Amino acid sequence: MPELRKDPIIGRWVIVATERAQRPHDFHAPKVEAAVGFCPFCAGNEKKTPREVFAIRDPGTSPNEPGWSVRVVPNKFPVLTIEGDVEKRAHGMYDRMRGLGAHEVFIETPEHLTSITPLPDGHVAQILTAYQVRLRDLQRDRRMSYGMLFKNVGAEGGASLEHTHSQLIVTPVVPRRVAEELAGARRFYEYRDRCVYCDILDQEMSSDERMVLATERFVAIAPYASRFPFEVWILPRRHESHFEHSTPEEIEDLAFVLKRVLKRIENALEHPPLNYMIHTAPFNVSPLGHYHWHIEIIPRVTRTAGFEWGTGFYINPVPPETAAEYLRKTAEEPGA
Amino acid sequence: MPELRKDPIIGRWVIVATERAQRPHDFHAPKVEAAVGFCPFCAGNEKKTPREVFAIRDPGTSPNEPGWSVRVVPNKFPVLTIEGDVEKRAHGMYDRMRGLGAHEVFIETPEHLTSITPLPDGHVAQILTAYQVRLRDLQRDRRMSYGMLFKNVGAEGGASLEHTHSQLIVTPVVPRRVAEELAGARRFYEYRDRCVYCDILDQEMSSDERMVLATERFVAIAPYASRFPFEVWILPRRHESHFEHSTPEEIEDLAFVLKRVLKRIENALEHPPLNYMIHTAPFNVSPLGHYHWHIEIIPRVTRTAGFEWGTGFYINPVPPETAAEYLRKTAEEPGA
Repeated sequence: MPELRKDPIIGRWVIVATERAQRPHDFHAPKVEAAVGFCPFCAGNEKKTPREVFAIRDPGTSPNEPGWSVRVVPNKFPVLTIEGDVEKRAHGMYDRMRGLGAHEVFIETPEHLTSITPLPDGHVAQILTAYQVRLRDLQRDRRMSYGMLFKNVGAEGGASLEHTHSQLIVTPVVPRRVAEELAGARRFYEYRDRCVYCDILDQEMSSDERMVLATERFVAIAPYASRFPFEVWILPRRHESHFEHSTPEEIEDLAFVLKRVLKRIENALEHPPLNYMIHTAPFNVSPLGHYHWHIEIIPRVTRTAGFEWGTGFYINPVPPETAAEYLRKTAEEPGA
Repeated sequence: MPELRKDPIIGRWVIVATERAQRPHDFHAPKVEAAVGFCPFCAGNEKKTPREVFAIRDPGTSPNEPGWSVRVVPNKFPVLTIEGDVEKRAHGMYDRMRGLGAHEVFIETPEHLTSITPLPDGHVAQILTAYQVRLRDLQRDRRMSYGMLFKNVGAEGGASLEHTHSQLIVTPVVPRRVAEELAGARRFYEYRDRCVYCDILDQEMSSDERMVLATERFVAIAPYASRFPFEVWILPRRHESHFEHSTPEEIEDLAFVLKRVLKRIENALEHPPLNYMIHTAPFNVSPLGHYHWHIEIIPRVTRTAGFEWGTGFYINPVPPETAAEYLRKTAEEPGA
């Protein structure tokens, strides 16, 4: 059972794997290449993964058999596990709890693709719908506080398998980074009585400077204080704190935008390692006036070094205005 | 002139290089290898760097000539620059200021070494003394608020030259990560009337569990909530908020400890990429009862992925107790 430990100074949580601890020689050289060869995520290999918890499948097909388009399974090497109680305890002056949580993998297509961008828009919408289904299901567990949906692409992005997939980790505490965002958005709201993200949308739509793509329901921008070259945020135009409350029409539009933004980033940076994260409200809170769910996409083409780790500053060598202009021009097809 | 931009939600600052912006094709593949070939940091090549601002040299030698043991020069590609006013301004709803600051490089030896560990202890003490000298000098500039001393080792650690060196970046604002640490330490102090780091020292010295090395004046531990495998913190046993107030005896002892801890990490992980950062009090504050300067050493053998970026959680596959035990055993010489 992994353990959650809290830094006594700034309150940062760390998940310490106390059981399957790696030995020093496992770390001698950072692994740069993703694993190749046999792929447990391909159709026909369903028995090589834990049993599915959800799938979008053809009528008449059985669980853990081919016939699916999107398949969700528990992670074979979960960072947090679902059994037991959270058991919050002191350890001398320190605080810890059991590594309770859930860790699921979304296998996004039965084909061995390394990106969702070759998939039809409707298939991408199925992936996003699967996100909503799992988030809704897991938040019924009252021991849990937050669900983080994210994607790792490329070895430098933290992926260990190249078959396109994303993940959901559910935690028994609201993560620090999320709490900071909620607190910052609340401060803005208390001062101005408006949602800071709605204000960002207004400002960005009044000029093309940092605009990447806008549709009826979504806007993709290079954020003003982008931490990384070609960082892009996708925000719904309708104020909504919970991703899982998005309507089917919104999911359809989001699939269109997400796929095209990723495609443009792939074109601009030649399939870079990247991550995206869905920032949404915690479990068990009512709709929030001050918070606005969104997706943050971060290509991983720069390295964070001592200065960034020590200060929390980021150094971005590409102004978001330059990135946005490039991503507007690199539209992969007419009208995209 | 670079620009400092503030994220409107959580207040994170980003340094955006608006002038020497890189083009997309500069990012097509992450650079994994450090540059090789000609080395501007080697003795005899002093003319290939900006003119030195400080050096520890043999009597009778001239600036920017050989004869030095430690040499400090402005960074040829500074992320912040020293000229002008900070010019805090709004940009619509956003906040920005000019990228005012300083960025210096400590060339730690005239020999082409990739680590300080082969150097005599007295030479390492000279490097640490140079840190103090530059910190004291730069804090006389009242426009400046903080000085971050750090080291990047290896391409994965963000280094672009392999000749052993460290850096100092001075910023016109107290960085967010530092402010959080100060605030956390103050909260602890207000509640218990004690320094949280002094309490950590007490707890860690009462057991060997996470102890790496202890001398008369310093303690090196694997911190309880280590973010990274083989993370090590070095703390002075005497409560002191300002690194630059360390005495010559402390600097001598610190040189002994820092060199040996680095050597043990190099042995354990076969010369991994790493960073270290000196966490010290901001400029222009009196000695603080609640803050305690220290060095954080983070080997870079795991990758931060979407979950870490989204939540601020870290996943550490090596318990600090295991790392500490290994680092105690891997002492590189008898008595070290």
